[in-house]
Amino acid sequence: MRESEIIDLFLRHLNRQGDLPLGDDAGALKLGEKWLVATNDMLVRKTDVPDIMTPEQVGFKAVTMNVSDIASMGARPIGFLFSLGIPGDLDSDYLEGIARGIGEALNFYGLPVLSADTNEADDLIIDGIALGLAERPLTRSGARPGELLCVTGDLGRALAGYLVWKNGLEVSDAVRKVLYEKFLEPRARVEEGIALSTVASSAIDISDGLAKELYLLAEMSGVGLEVYPERLPIGEGVEEVAGLLGLDPVEVALASGEEFELVFTVPPDIVDSIDFEFSVIGVVTNQKGVYSVANGTKKCLPRLGWEHLSHQKVYNR
Amino acid sequence: MRESEIIDLFLRHLNRQGDLPLGDDAGALKLGEKWLVATNDMLVRKTDVPDIMTPEQVGFKAVTMNVSDIASMGARPIGFLFSLGIPGDLDSDYLEGIARGIGEALNFYGLPVLSADTNEADDLIIDGIALGLAERPLTRSGARPGELLCVTGDLGRALAGYLVWKNGLEVSDAVRKVLYEKFLEPRARVEEGIALSTVASSAIDISDGLAKELYLLAEMSGVGLEVYPERLPIGEGVEEVAGLLGLDPVEVALASGEEFELVFTVPPDIVDSIDFEFSVIGVVTNQKGVYSVANGTKKCLPRLGWEHLSHQKVYNR
Repeated sequence: MRESEIIDLFLRHLNRQGDLPLGDDAGALKLGEKWLVATNDMLVRKTDVPDIMTPEQVGFKAVTMNVSDIASMGARPIGFLFSLGIPGDLDSDYLEGIARGIGEALNFYGLPVLSADTNEADDLIIDGIALGLAERPLTRSGARPGELLCVTGDLGRALAGYLVWKNGLEVSDAVRKVLYEKFLEPRARVEEGIALSTVASSAIDISDGLAKELYLLAEMSGVGLEVYPERLPIGEGVEEVAGLLGLDPVEVALASGEEFELVFTVPPDIVDSIDFEFSVIGVVTNQKGVYSVANGTKKCLPRLGWEHLSHQKVYNR
Repeated sequence: MRESEIIDLFLRHLNRQGDLPLGDDAGALKLGEKWLVATNDMLVRKTDVPDIMTPEQVGFKAVTMNVSDIASMGARPIGFLFSLGIPGDLDSDYLEGIARGIGEALNFYGLPVLSADTNEADDLIIDGIALGLAERPLTRSGARPGELLCVTGDLGRALAGYLVWKNGLEVSDAVRKVLYEKFLEPRARVEEGIALSTVASSAIDISDGLAKELYLLAEMSGVGLEVYPERLPIGEGVEEVAGLLGLDPVEVALASGEEFELVFTVPPDIVDSIDFEFSVIGVVTNQKGVYSVANGTKKCLPRLGWEHLSHQKVYNR
């Protein structure tokens, strides 16, 4: 079964949802004047962990991927929980590396651990859970025609790093470093998410690839999106890797998952008040769908990005 | 590695904790006047699911075991999240049964699902997460000498049911029904937990067996406990199963895990104000340790109960 079929199957039986319908980066409950935001994301070694990743990086990432979902809701993360599935033969040094990585991430994000659970399992599994508080949750459904489409940071290094590793590409140490930093040690955009909660109309983090996130944003907001490929902030080294493999660097940027950058929409008159670095990459329109607009030509954007649960996590083109 | 060694290893690296130190059934954060309580507990099919359990029962139990931890903190459950690890060859009818069971449990407990995540994994895994709100959290560390030691419901049917199944024992349909009800379809004591939050000094739910929970309660409260074996509310059918296997029914009651009954301590002058059914099974004393007192003889209580991560979940005697 595909991931989407499994989700549909479960949704048929889950008729009680929180104070936001399911479908955002995190769920939410209204608690008095504030919103409690909660998310969970499981990391499975076999499908999610490349063999060059240190256990410290694995532990750190299990925190980051959850904190990023809290950030994209415009919430301040307030706590972390995790469940471990541990194979009986797992090396204790490796396990200690995981613990160290989780601890480092909690220090980095200033988060307490509220609860932890250990179990025996066939493969190493870390299920991370993050909680946050928001004044007003930022959803995927608030984009309105006429707004600007923006993204934090740069794009493509996570996938380019993966391609270097997967294909054993020869690149300079400097390029490898800048790609692997994003591929192996991504960071969540916490302060940006909190800042966006008061100005943006919608947001989503890049987990499965920019193109897939744009389709989600457009569908949930009931709007169209136009993206200008020349405006995409393509990361250092991405063009070089794309060139080595005969790929289009724009496609690499659109497909690159686990970037943990925030995609957001904002009214044009407010955009100048944002005081962190970001790029305007397109506009919100009335015409439903997601389009690439270059040299006066408008084309459907391909739905590039991660595909889960098809034997292995792969880039779906 | 044993579960306790893994926990120690992680605790060395987790220096940020919530507003209660780790070690209770759930973690807690103070949010204004209230306490947010959060817990997570992973169910792994290979070690946690007997083959007679229907997928509906598996899904329901994944909710119950988490809700029980919220209840034992004296909190009202307010939301549920879950992550699934799904083997590629899992039957879709089985998966739908899991979904149905989770949905039934959320209806039973009146809980919304806030977030869900699906992944491919080697074995079926359900990591459940429950959130709750408490006026004041009920911990394992509040028991004081002179108080009464109490437990909700009855004891032993979960283990007796397990023994019937594991050993293929011949018992009447009526006995099998009453044992399997607790073994396969336990329910969390939500209303009792909320009621206890205003009167009890400490509480813990029975996950790993009464005896193990009593040791945790005594150690974390820095007190001693004396238990009167003849006062234990031994469940229907437990004596019969113990007899068939030459076991002491009191030991079955002490070792029986996943009962999800609440053990609590309460000052003697308040005990009469409790308006649900429970049993007084002992007293809190100054003399550290956990003792059984019968016929004027005081003996150390054996630490009976579940042991995790030793190849398989087994009853440790």
